[in-house]
Amino acid sequence: MNRRMILYMPLQILKAVAVLMLLPALVSLFYQEKSVWAFLICAAATFAVAQILQWIIHPENKVIYAREGFVIVALAWVLMAVFGALPFVVSGEIPNFVDALFETMSGFTTTGSSILRDVTALSHGIAFWRSFTHWLGGMGILVFVMAITNMSDRPIHIMRAEMPGPIVGKLVPKAKNTAKILYLIYIGLTLAEWLTLKLGGMSAFEAAIHAFGSAGTGGFGVRPDSLTSYSPFLQWAVAVFMFLFGVNFNLYYLILAKKIGTALRSTELWTYVCIGVVSTAAITLNIRHLCGSFSEALRLSAFQVSSIATTTGFATADFNLWPDFSKTVLLILMLVGACAGSTAGGLKVSRVMILFKSIHREIMKTLHPRGVRVLRLEGKTLDEAVVSNTFGYFGLYALVLVVCFLLVSVDKFDLETSLTASVACFNNIGPAFGAAGPMSNYADFSVLSKLTLTLAMLLGRLEIFPVLLAVAPVTWTKK
Amino acid sequence: MNRRMILYMPLQILKAVAVLMLLPALVSLFYQEKSVWAFLICAAATFAVAQILQWIIHPENKVIYAREGFVIVALAWVLMAVFGALPFVVSGEIPNFVDALFETMSGFTTTGSSILRDVTALSHGIAFWRSFTHWLGGMGILVFVMAITNMSDRPIHIMRAEMPGPIVGKLVPKAKNTAKILYLIYIGLTLAEWLTLKLGGMSAFEAAIHAFGSAGTGGFGVRPDSLTSYSPFLQWAVAVFMFLFGVNFNLYYLILAKKIGTALRSTELWTYVCIGVVSTAAITLNIRHLCGSFSEALRLSAFQVSSIATTTGFATADFNLWPDFSKTVLLILMLVGACAGSTAGGLKVSRVMILFKSIHREIMKTLHPRGVRVLRLEGKTLDEAVVSNTFGYFGLYALVLVVCFLLVSVDKFDLETSLTASVACFNNIGPAFGAAGPMSNYADFSVLSKLTLTLAMLLGRLEIFPVLLAVAPVTWTKK
Repeated sequence: MNRRMILYMPLQILKAVAVLMLLPALVSLFYQEKSVWAFLICAAATFAVAQILQWIIHPENKVIYAREGFVIVALAWVLMAVFGALPFVVSGEIPNFVDALFETMSGFTTTGSSILRDVTALSHGIAFWRSFTHWLGGMGILVFVMAITNMSDRPIHIMRAEMPGPIVGKLVPKAKNTAKILYLIYIGLTLAEWLTLKLGGMSAFEAAIHAFGSAGTGGFGVRPDSLTSYSPFLQWAVAVFMFLFGVNFNLYYLILAKKIGTALRSTELWTYVCIGVVSTAAITLNIRHLCGSFSEALRLSAFQVSSIATTTGFATADFNLWPDFSKTVLLILMLVGACAGSTAGGLKVSRVMILFKSIHREIMKTLHPRGVRVLRLEGKTLDEAVVSNTFGYFGLYALVLVVCFLLVSVDKFDLETSLTASVACFNNIGPAFGAAGPMSNYADFSVLSKLTLTLAMLLGRLEIFPVLLAVAPVTWTKK
Repeated sequence: MNRRMILYMPLQILKAVAVLMLLPALVSLFYQEKSVWAFLICAAATFAVAQILQWIIHPENKVIYAREGFVIVALAWVLMAVFGALPFVVSGEIPNFVDALFETMSGFTTTGSSILRDVTALSHGIAFWRSFTHWLGGMGILVFVMAITNMSDRPIHIMRAEMPGPIVGKLVPKAKNTAKILYLIYIGLTLAEWLTLKLGGMSAFEAAIHAFGSAGTGGFGVRPDSLTSYSPFLQWAVAVFMFLFGVNFNLYYLILAKKIGTALRSTELWTYVCIGVVSTAAITLNIRHLCGSFSEALRLSAFQVSSIATTTGFATADFNLWPDFSKTVLLILMLVGACAGSTAGGLKVSRVMILFKSIHREIMKTLHPRGVRVLRLEGKTLDEAVVSNTFGYFGLYALVLVVCFLLVSVDKFDLETSLTASVACFNNIGPAFGAAGPMSNYADFSVLSKLTLTLAMLLGRLEIFPVLLAVAPVTWTKK
């Protein structure tokens, strides 16, 4: 392990975060809010701390391998959340540090769970920073820094560790160029959503907030009822964009590269579309009697399916009041998530597909013990290492969920709240059922629960392994 | 596939069930109840139907392989439940067939979920039959028939399919003798419990009911409050015996064969003991304030942990009213279950151990991609086929649970009830939380939910694969 680089590179990211804090500072300045000072102080302090520590550490050997990549990403994310929380505390808008840390981690991990009882009380600058963390965390801030600097000789290791899904490949020979292409697509889609929302009647500021929230599949908004009070057009627009941000970004690259046929042959895409359509149909029929018209039922259902499957967490209705069947469908969508290589959380559709295929193979093995069968995904033979890694991930995933649920259940809430809050934070969704429903918040959870859920969000966003490796003794002991 | 044998052998089991119905008939006769006629009619009808069908089918080729073994076990269990339900219907004590089927499947699969609103209304004969199904299903009725007849040339295939756990081995060279030894241990332990309960003050009848319920890890009792109103001595006695029936029976054989040292080196045993001790301690502290004394808290906690971990389902308190943390611990115990090779349900401790070891290996692989590591359990190297089969089982297990939960959630209950009822039936526990709590019953569930849960019990008891193979087209099509 190159321990100096493991400490050095996250500080590089911290410097980038400090610079990025100047953007919300500009927003504060525009609205003439005093939070501008909070951003300037925090940006300066963060940059200074990072720079001084970098001078002290200064690594001679800059080579990193896959395992260094994992640990660097995990440490960078912890530092981002800790320092990213400072503006909330310094501005006094979220004075409690644990709360601010929860909110920032929820932002960067694109979870969207909030401890704010009244989101309208935030200044524009702070609200912008809160939503901007979604956008930065969605595609991955290390990927972003990689795209614009020469951060590392071997950026692919960073990319593999930060980007979700069972297989992360390069679109083009150089990882740095891949990062650039992905970010350009990301920026393009975000701008398209911003424009659409602006034309649909939102203010420029609100359009930006909701574009950031959908792009990163985060879910922070500026109204206490999320998107309930916006027009049907805006609700449909956000529903469609959320769904688009749940698609594997490689497909957009293929479309840009005029390989539309290849893109449309993606089985993950069609599985994702099928899950969306079937879930929407089931919930529409199940909530039809609660709505004024069929079209309203369809809109509420489609919006919520898109929002939950992509792990965004926006709401246009209090789905906590929907029939148990609809809630169960949503709970399953929470676990599955959207496509790998998108900004969404959850297990990811392709990982669930690998699980199903492996299960099918195990059944066939019972019938024909001596038969040899390879698994295929997207027309390619799956490496057995990917299959066993997927199962390992699934086991770890279940384990983290159980431990999180156990710790949160120490709180005074009912089983439904403890369980779904754990699921919603770990899968980076945001709102859950019961006391943590879409029209409620996480303010009443204990400090233990808040810290547990904060860690769960990080584990969910980075897909567990990086965080585990960062705390493994083997990473830090000398051979 | 030897399709004639697949149909022929389950009928053999059905004939055994018909003969076994004469035992409750004797009980009815002893108590001079008119249910004696129900048993005689049902026994005669069942035997006649099975015999006539056997004459028609009459297989020439009696050879079976592993896959025939799976399907035979699955079909036999379905027939057992369908014909075993007849006495309830014919006697008029459970007139509705779906209810009777639910109750019988719950009996044979040692689940212990009941649709009876008032269990005290049952005649002695019917109550005896209901609990006797637990005892027969616990160790496996096919294993029982195998032990006393020359049912098949290759009984090991039947044993592998019917006995739970990731690895089923022979204790002695002949599978038939292994079955005999296991049944003798089973009978010995059951008699020991019966005697203990009798000496502790139960009537001979009630001692038999509770001995059957603990031995099979079933949970049917004769009082509406389960074991709440029995003396602390009896509660402790049942707690200890439930725990003993959750131990791998191979260990008892080792002890009888004077290999006590080998038995005590079982890592699964110690993991099971640790889980029990830690869970009991946690719940005792968590419910201390609800109880009159520490010893009462300890007794209630130890009893419930033993009952739930072994998937029995007896209760000495309404644990549905306990704090959320205790309920979460119990819910996790429901999923884990007790040792493989015992009469308990759930995932089984050794399977969970294999999962943990594989997860650990996957983490190590991330660090050292080229390292080769074999997994060991109980001092032996684990075959990779067992590892991948365990993961396949785990995936299937999660899938069945999700589908069951989805179907049950169509009912009007809350999420807690739908989810835990699915967990409790699928893991063969019995009581759940919410509306299906230990002081309640499953009477109010819809027909869809009852049938779903009936199937879930069967899938849980036979560990999914046999049932899947029985309905797979490949089993029934000619090549």
